Amino acid sequence: MSAGNVFPPPVRLLLGPGPSMIHPRVLQAMSTPLVGHLDPAFLAIMEENKRLLRWLFGTANELTIPVSGTGSAGMEMCFVNLVEPGDEVVVCVNGLFGQRMSDVARRCGAEVHEVSAPWGRIVDPEDVRRALQQCRRPKLLAVVHAETSTGVLQPLDELGSLAKEFGALFLVDTVTSLGGHPVRVDAWGIDACYSGTQKCLSAPPGLAPVTFSPRATEVARKRRQPIQSWYLDVTLLSQYWGSDRVYHHTAPITMNYALLEALRLIEAEGLEARWQRHERNHRALVAGLTALGLSLASQEGYRLWTLNCVEVPRAVNDAQLRGALLNEFGIEIGGGLGPFKGRAWRIGLMGESSTAANVLAVLSALEQTLPRFGFPVEPGSGVAAAERVFAAR
Amino acid sequence: MSAGNVFPPPVRLLLGPGPSMIHPRVLQAMSTPLVGHLDPAFLAIMEENKRLLRWLFGTANELTIPVSGTGSAGMEMCFVNLVEPGDEVVVCVNGLFGQRMSDVARRCGAEVHEVSAPWGRIVDPEDVRRALQQCRRPKLLAVVHAETSTGVLQPLDELGSLAKEFGALFLVDTVTSLGGHPVRVDAWGIDACYSGTQKCLSAPPGLAPVTFSPRATEVARKRRQPIQSWYLDVTLLSQYWGSDRVYHHTAPITMNYALLEALRLIEAEGLEARWQRHERNHRALVAGLTALGLSLASQEGYRLWTLNCVEVPRAVNDAQLRGALLNEFGIEIGGGLGPFKGRAWRIGLMGESSTAANVLAVLSALEQTLPRFGFPVEPGSGVAAAERVFAAR
Repeated sequence: MSAGNVFPPPVRLLLGPGPSMIHPRVLQAMSTPLVGHLDPAFLAIMEENKRLLRWLFGTANELTIPVSGTGSAGMEMCFVNLVEPGDEVVVCVNGLFGQRMSDVARRCGAEVHEVSAPWGRIVDPEDVRRALQQCRRPKLLAVVHAETSTGVLQPLDELGSLAKEFGALFLVDTVTSLGGHPVRVDAWGIDACYSGTQKCLSAPPGLAPVTFSPRATEVARKRRQPIQSWYLDVTLLSQYWGSDRVYHHTAPITMNYALLEALRLIEAEGLEARWQRHERNHRALVAGLTALGLSLASQEGYRLWTLNCVEVPRAVNDAQLRGALLNEFGIEIGGGLGPFKGRAWRIGLMGESSTAANVLAVLSALEQTLPRFGFPVEPGSGVAAAERVFAAR
Repeated sequence: MSAGNVFPPPVRLLLGPGPSMIHPRVLQAMSTPLVGHLDPAFLAIMEENKRLLRWLFGTANELTIPVSGTGSAGMEMCFVNLVEPGDEVVVCVNGLFGQRMSDVARRCGAEVHEVSAPWGRIVDPEDVRRALQQCRRPKLLAVVHAETSTGVLQPLDELGSLAKEFGALFLVDTVTSLGGHPVRVDAWGIDACYSGTQKCLSAPPGLAPVTFSPRATEVARKRRQPIQSWYLDVTLLSQYWGSDRVYHHTAPITMNYALLEALRLIEAEGLEARWQRHERNHRALVAGLTALGLSLASQEGYRLWTLNCVEVPRAVNDAQLRGALLNEFGIEIGGGLGPFKGRAWRIGLMGESSTAANVLAVLSALEQTLPRFGFPVEPGSGVAAAERVFAAR
């Protein structure tokens, strides 16, 4: 593409691991002229975002804010504030984002105890118990709720109880679950939780909603050593987002407009209805994929509704098939990461992307494309299987 | 404001320290539907942004990218990659952002040597030389080009020569100068430079353009200790922004659209014309303020064209006057920070905000408002003085 014609880009149907589709009201909000980051009108928007995020996270935590970076900045924000050099941290690793947590914790000087499970499977709480027992004094237990690299949903109730039993802070990544699956920060005893705007919230990437329990906030405030990040220092951030309104950095105004409008859409739909929608569309997609002879790479019974990790059939060239979907159908699906590279597709049904029409569109595109790549399928069989799920509701 | 009516916010004329006004084409770009962060169409947009940022920074540096955070994230990105625990760093401090650099450098474990000057004055290169001489082995010399807290423009040529003479990396903050004042990264021997999108680039806040010289990139790659930040790790970032396209984090797609459109507008105007426009409007504003009997808080001969730091007259209540401008005229100007709190106003004329109409609007609003706050002025005298500057071009 030459310099002149790179913008605007082509219209895509986003069914990958994020970003997801954006509602027109959110896109429209992004073109609203700016106000200053200390303008009373912006402070009112910040308050409304905090209120709606608390509701979405299922928490009464005062410290509940959108951090000015993407989901990975949210991860880093949690670790840099809560972990000091020499702290023992137990990290569950069954995919790329668990690995990333482990990496980030080490950069904070943590002594990391990894609890591993194969990619595509959940982490066994008994293994977590053993790891906690091996610690002299575990500071923190970290786990990914919805592993975006494998499509696995990790149950959290037992892990929350373990963290409590061992006196560890409980840190949870909900990047690919918040707004698509139930997330109950207070009920599950979560001390620190982060997410991103570009998955089930269906706002553009650029903010990381984060919530800290009073205990986590206290731990960050009473550190022996200064927080290594100025940008993500929770004490400074809370002075801006709290009643003091002390200038810290210039908040991304437009992204906060988008977040507000996205949260209002979620509020209007209702959380229960939204979860049901995500579950139904996931079941329809899986029925269709199964009818086409495809298999999921994630453990049955623990599959995300929001991201479907599909095994690439042996005969099929991963990149070429994804290229055909993109170029011929305008559909983006994701490739695999790490050990799943070339071996798995990731089909996201998150937020605005989770619709019956999109399930049918991607199944139809696969039906039309797979035979050309040496994987014969019965025309219409995937779509028909999905339709049966929709009809049964 | 109640929950229901916080959005959309009122329309403001943004003449504070940022964000500045946004061109309609940039606002419109923000409402463009998203593509994925690994979509070939997005990679083409990234390439175009890199090309235009190189042109804007006056550099051939391969590593020239918009970091996924605000300007302060750009500052942190430079320090965390270049500074290791125990390194000696010389930081020029004559305002809030110099202080912040010093704070960030300490959090990286640096042994910081501060070179101070009073707020409102430039740092003396002879003081910098002495500080460099006192170091065993200075790793880095850091300075703010355009001090947003005081309105002072620091000359860089001599400091660049000093950094070179002592073998130190030269790190420069151009948050409030890039796109408004000449910035010549290569010609001035700058090794690391960061800015923000919400000042003279007139895009919303949310990205921090950063450029690293080959030498700086090499220093970051050859560190003895791992970089404390995963999110801002230049080696990982360059794998995504370089030809490898390795997934790191999900780039803020929409903000990159906005940046592209903002950079294209700058390209269309031309840098020389843009600098002249900023200088002329600054001179007109200063003529008007002077005619009203107001004084600037920044050293004559070293004043920013982009941000005018004005002394609050003794009789006038700072917050009340700014409130009157905001509520009665819809005009935002900034208050003072640190020692300038309550003592200075900051009137920004950055990017799209730097127009003759805006100069006249803020002078007229001051003429109408100041007398009510116990500071009599001749009606029309400020506007007339500005008009004489415009007429003289």
